[in-house]
Amino acid sequence: MTDSADVRVPQDPAGSANPVKPPDRAGSARTGGPVVGMVGGGQLARMTAQAAIGLGVGFRVLAGSAADSAAQVTAGTRLGDYRSLEDLRDFAAGCDVLTFDHEHVPGEHLAALEQAGVRVTPSAAALRFTQDKLAMRERLTRLGIACPRFALVSAIAEVTGFAAGAWPVVLKAVSGGYDGKGVWVCGSAAEAQAVLAHGIGLIAEEYITFERELAVLVARSPHGQGAVYPVVETVQRDGICREVIAPAPGLAPGRSAQAAGLALRIAAELGVTGLLAVEMFETSGGLLVNELAMRPHNCGHWTIEGARTSQFEQHLRAVLDLPLGSPALAAPAVMANVLGGDDAGVYDRYVHVMAQDPAVKVHMYGKPVRPGRKIGHVTVTGDRAHRNTGELVDRARRAASYLRWGKEDGE
Amino acid sequence: MTDSADVRVPQDPAGSANPVKPPDRAGSARTGGPVVGMVGGGQLARMTAQAAIGLGVGFRVLAGSAADSAAQVTAGTRLGDYRSLEDLRDFAAGCDVLTFDHEHVPGEHLAALEQAGVRVTPSAAALRFTQDKLAMRERLTRLGIACPRFALVSAIAEVTGFAAGAWPVVLKAVSGGYDGKGVWVCGSAAEAQAVLAHGIGLIAEEYITFERELAVLVARSPHGQGAVYPVVETVQRDGICREVIAPAPGLAPGRSAQAAGLALRIAAELGVTGLLAVEMFETSGGLLVNELAMRPHNCGHWTIEGARTSQFEQHLRAVLDLPLGSPALAAPAVMANVLGGDDAGVYDRYVHVMAQDPAVKVHMYGKPVRPGRKIGHVTVTGDRAHRNTGELVDRARRAASYLRWGKEDGE
Repeated sequence: MTDSADVRVPQDPAGSANPVKPPDRAGSARTGGPVVGMVGGGQLARMTAQAAIGLGVGFRVLAGSAADSAAQVTAGTRLGDYRSLEDLRDFAAGCDVLTFDHEHVPGEHLAALEQAGVRVTPSAAALRFTQDKLAMRERLTRLGIACPRFALVSAIAEVTGFAAGAWPVVLKAVSGGYDGKGVWVCGSAAEAQAVLAHGIGLIAEEYITFERELAVLVARSPHGQGAVYPVVETVQRDGICREVIAPAPGLAPGRSAQAAGLALRIAAELGVTGLLAVEMFETSGGLLVNELAMRPHNCGHWTIEGARTSQFEQHLRAVLDLPLGSPALAAPAVMANVLGGDDAGVYDRYVHVMAQDPAVKVHMYGKPVRPGRKIGHVTVTGDRAHRNTGELVDRARRAASYLRWGKEDGE
Repeated sequence: MTDSADVRVPQDPAGSANPVKPPDRAGSARTGGPVVGMVGGGQLARMTAQAAIGLGVGFRVLAGSAADSAAQVTAGTRLGDYRSLEDLRDFAAGCDVLTFDHEHVPGEHLAALEQAGVRVTPSAAALRFTQDKLAMRERLTRLGIACPRFALVSAIAEVTGFAAGAWPVVLKAVSGGYDGKGVWVCGSAAEAQAVLAHGIGLIAEEYITFERELAVLVARSPHGQGAVYPVVETVQRDGICREVIAPAPGLAPGRSAQAAGLALRIAAELGVTGLLAVEMFETSGGLLVNELAMRPHNCGHWTIEGARTSQFEQHLRAVLDLPLGSPALAAPAVMANVLGGDDAGVYDRYVHVMAQDPAVKVHMYGKPVRPGRKIGHVTVTGDRAHRNTGELVDRARRAASYLRWGKEDGE
């Protein structure tokens, strides 16, 4: 095994693993492997389906519509509503393990499924920290993990008191959001008042002036094995992740180890099984944890080409309690998201993108084009000796911009 | 673009390409891409399905059974018989391009489909040279390409005359085979007589004492762009490909260029569109062409992890007349086929294989286990600077052997 310095793979002896075994039944006897069910039919399920094909494990998705990104390509698609306990129960009955491509399944349904003996990974108890931002902040604070300063707020006086004259202040929905939005950067009390008017549970957070944003992706299996991917830099514009640079350029080894240790510790303390993405701010004062997700994540799409084990395969291995794959860097990589532009005919641009850069990897999600929506991503990899990530960033941006067509902000 | 020295990518200007455009119809409007139909539901179609998901192009397979390797995982599976013109016509009606995961579709059906305006890639004229070994040998000989000495034989006197006392002699079915077999190495006239008794068309070929076997995979698009993968060494035992080492260790640059040139020339002369695999013998006297295949091929499975563009994505790009992807080496790779052993429970061995080598990539085909049958493959990659392919071979063999379980020949 040829691993990079920034990666730690605690290797437990194989004998302590307790992988999910397929029961004796006709459906799984054919391939001999268990069936993983993923709730949600988006692009994360679509890319997990690709990984399941390679591993030769059964894979089903619970999708809201046959037109959903994953439903278009997955033979094992079941249609249903993730908000319906009955639909979840029916779906789970055909699967050995249940996992998720989003965090919106109601917590009481997750608990009910567990009560009924369904193997839910990550567990309802762990997922709660992705569904309830107040619980997440309180838990991390109790663990002594640095986060932005926060407070539960329900009236404007509480917000102005929290701000103490230092605007902007960030308001976040405790769970869910309003009209598809969950984060508001408020420059004044008047703006905060407009958000409070939605009548949803909110926390206020200090607005962090960061040097850059980092993310760490770890996997943890039920019997406790952990694997950490190299720390990446994520570049956001207008609140949308635009590029991910792996590994994060010029990151001090000590800080890289600190970020990896933080993510592994959170995964263990919260009892995560499967993937955990930890988004962080790098500030002059150190690292602050911003968000958590317990599923494959946009910050890990680069692993398909850039790591020995893709995040999608890793998630499957973790939820099946198989030994985790090596998260080591195979090649420095830059991923750029493809956002929808003004023109729906993305395929017409393939010829230009592919002729211009024969080594760019195009991943499209089969989603209808809407301006600003993530409809795909592209990845460019370099040599392991490659240290000019700037060139990779340029190439990835150019390819994503070609595919977007129409308006692009000056690239 | 960072390409290896052994790779030539003639880059035509994008403007000269003529990519397949999806027609205006409801079915393809959703994703905006064309639909590729692959005849055959084996593992090659299964792995092409994974690549189609990434590219975001529509993909359908014509499979004989819903239990076929590709049919298990592909949403766009149609059941039918590749020997039935009616089934082929029905299947083609839903696709923009027709291609193949095997060479067994009757030539007259291919011609009829072309007559009816179906875009068949590779064409019936090109595929003929994979279906008729006599035509292939005669054509290559006319092109001045070195092959083993051959002759059409139908009586034992012709075989003994051909042998001129130098046994063994290789008998090959001109097309198809007998009882699933198409090649017989005959050590005596009596053995040859037993093959002649099957009553099928046969050619005799001299038995080549080779130093090793090499293979070259090239892609060619309808408008003539070509891309060559690095030359690989293939290791066969008992007539079955066991390992592929990429790139072929210690191959002289001149010989590598010769092999690549040979494959590109055959692709152009035979009018191949899509992939062409050329299997060769390396002998003290030079290179001799042994077999041709016009589809993704076992000798190219390593490209999933080891090349910038996998052979499966490359085949799709070629048949759609999109610009070809870079065939450059991403990392030295060794692929080992997993053969069925005595025990059907392959999944039970995952825990051992994965714990033993967290960087090995497992690809299983969902096929019922039968002793000696290819049921999957594993790939191990090194660094680009890695020159110890022996270590990669050992790791790949060990993983494949673990998955096979049961009897293994001394590894």
